[in-house]
Amino acid sequence: MSHTFALDKSCPETGARAGLITTSRGAVPTPAFLPVGSQAAVKALGPDEVRAAGASIILANTYHLHLRPGVGVIEKVGGLHRFMSWPGPILTDSGGYQVFSLARLCRTADEGVTFRSHVDGSEHFLTPEMVIQLQERLGSDIIMPLDECPPYCQEPELIREAVRRTHVWAERSRLARRRDDQALYGIVQGGAFPELRRQSAEFLASLGFDGYAIGGVSLGEPKQVMFSTIEETVGWLPEDRPRYLMGVGSPEDILEAVARGVDLFDSALPTRTARNGALFTASGRRNIQNACYRDRDEPLDRDCGCYTCRHFSAAYLHHLFRSRELLAYRLATIHNLTFVLGLMRRIREAILDGRFAALKRAFLAEYRTTDEETRLVQKQKWLSSRTEPESLAPFV
Amino acid sequence: MSHTFALDKSCPETGARAGLITTSRGAVPTPAFLPVGSQAAVKALGPDEVRAAGASIILANTYHLHLRPGVGVIEKVGGLHRFMSWPGPILTDSGGYQVFSLARLCRTADEGVTFRSHVDGSEHFLTPEMVIQLQERLGSDIIMPLDECPPYCQEPELIREAVRRTHVWAERSRLARRRDDQALYGIVQGGAFPELRRQSAEFLASLGFDGYAIGGVSLGEPKQVMFSTIEETVGWLPEDRPRYLMGVGSPEDILEAVARGVDLFDSALPTRTARNGALFTASGRRNIQNACYRDRDEPLDRDCGCYTCRHFSAAYLHHLFRSRELLAYRLATIHNLTFVLGLMRRIREAILDGRFAALKRAFLAEYRTTDEETRLVQKQKWLSSRTEPESLAPFV
Repeated sequence: MSHTFALDKSCPETGARAGLITTSRGAVPTPAFLPVGSQAAVKALGPDEVRAAGASIILANTYHLHLRPGVGVIEKVGGLHRFMSWPGPILTDSGGYQVFSLARLCRTADEGVTFRSHVDGSEHFLTPEMVIQLQERLGSDIIMPLDECPPYCQEPELIREAVRRTHVWAERSRLARRRDDQALYGIVQGGAFPELRRQSAEFLASLGFDGYAIGGVSLGEPKQVMFSTIEETVGWLPEDRPRYLMGVGSPEDILEAVARGVDLFDSALPTRTARNGALFTASGRRNIQNACYRDRDEPLDRDCGCYTCRHFSAAYLHHLFRSRELLAYRLATIHNLTFVLGLMRRIREAILDGRFAALKRAFLAEYRTTDEETRLVQKQKWLSSRTEPESLAPFV
Repeated sequence: MSHTFALDKSCPETGARAGLITTSRGAVPTPAFLPVGSQAAVKALGPDEVRAAGASIILANTYHLHLRPGVGVIEKVGGLHRFMSWPGPILTDSGGYQVFSLARLCRTADEGVTFRSHVDGSEHFLTPEMVIQLQERLGSDIIMPLDECPPYCQEPELIREAVRRTHVWAERSRLARRRDDQALYGIVQGGAFPELRRQSAEFLASLGFDGYAIGGVSLGEPKQVMFSTIEETVGWLPEDRPRYLMGVGSPEDILEAVARGVDLFDSALPTRTARNGALFTASGRRNIQNACYRDRDEPLDRDCGCYTCRHFSAAYLHHLFRSRELLAYRLATIHNLTFVLGLMRRIREAILDGRFAALKRAFLAEYRTTDEETRLVQKQKWLSSRTEPESLAPFV
């Protein structure tokens, strides 16, 4: 087994834990955040910049890469790491979430799922076995099984059926594996229903995976629902395997989830908000396009050591955004990723030093979050905008 | 005088010359190419990347910066160099060309020019004196006077009038200067009329400028017309001052112009074509979006040492362009600028070694240029697309 997970320390006051995932391509100190590079690129950044921002592992997406450029192309040029010039660990998502949210879904059956590509409308059919095979050909380090990820809903029967099928697919995914040098995680579903979450976690744990993901969250549900879902899931997962919360990436959510025992996160939020000019600071998100930054002759964040804050004033960033200069998106992305990855490092150090609870309190006392109502409206807006044709939303 | 120009060597077979401009912010070995950063950013690149590509001096634009963010903002944050984090020499164009091509022109009189901003339609009035003052406040190292730059036309009376006004403005620009630490160049106009070019060059030379620019070229005229215009202008300019051909930047044109005694070039062509996926190689421009690059597991240009070619395959670049990933525009821009700036270095070395004519022959024998008819069609298309509202053409 080329993958291991060692727990270094647990927090005495919360469920937080510090650990270390080792892969043949490098170690991942946890809790860790995975920058999202769905199409084999973290939007606007080169791999060296992703590394410099503090990333030890990144995420790519099987759905996106299958549709474009095609896994055959990536295989031919030596695999995903070489293709994107990122020698470190890569986790590939199965694309389950994308099939059920981004593509036009045609049919879901136990055999597999039929959908139309969001890129060109072409019809595709994927089985759990095919999704494993695609990821084995991509050569990523951690792979995910195809899962059924329904939208947030209150209908237990729909969610129960999705859990059943996710379990069938999880079993088949395990059997479909041909390579033993990749870690395979199981994905827990179950919506906001504690009993279904327990069943899903227990069933997957009984099969035995290298790690466990909590899927079906961050789909527009209230935050408190997400937090209780995490609690109701984590309790049934084995202690000695990494726990990965899919699609969560705001600083405040990361802290809450770490406190509940989560080890891994991925989310496009830091990079997407960056391209919209929303930049993280210790006191909350700032919109760099606001008039107050027009002639501000200091970095956006004086405490930040990122390339952007070391070299450019808030006035310059403001100008680049107002002028829609491409450099804007890159500088903002560097800043937001550095902020989130720096937070992960501080979280880990705090857990090791036995002061995580204090760090969490201090951070959240200073960090002003978007109010819940506004947040839910924004989230819904984003979820529906994703299915627009690409050409209309190149920066989203 | 903080600016000097020293001629190191002249080509025995052509008019090519190697020299050195010194400014208080660094030296510029000539012949030199200035990457275009109209809005205080070379599109898609950070200043360190522009430097790494081989630039010693860049161009910014008074018209653009006056409209946005406003020269007052840049002044307040410590001047243009600090604003954009580029400590080396900067040449600012006066904006004459932009006023007469990009803005909606309202009135031109000897007093000055009234136009509407291409950004927000607001009305502005600029005199030659104001344009000098704006550049003194920006703090650039080489400044340009306001000139009247009519479109390419065959009507001598129109061009004669533009030359007359350009001369009046040139005289007033000299008198308007308050700083003595910036070089001021004169701009020769005269269209495709040898006699007007001679008059313009002689008149400006009699006033005495720190350098001389050839304006009113690369406006859609046939290449042979441009080359003869250069010849008919250069002959009347003083030997001991830099000669700057405005708006020219294709490799083949640079070689021809250097052979005719030009020392400085600026053009958005290498960066703009890069964002369209047209990449320079020794054998000509290649369109990276062509299907032949889909699975090509080698750099676009094996002979190129740029960051892009050292780290990424043509297949990856192809994928980034097809997927409209922001990283595409940056990697392509790095490559094209490195190519052009590398060509400038090779040109200079060849002149110093007395083998420029051989380099020019060898380069042009291998480099396949766009045929003249296609080129003129593309140029016209671009000239008219420039006046479209910004929102429709963010990448152009």
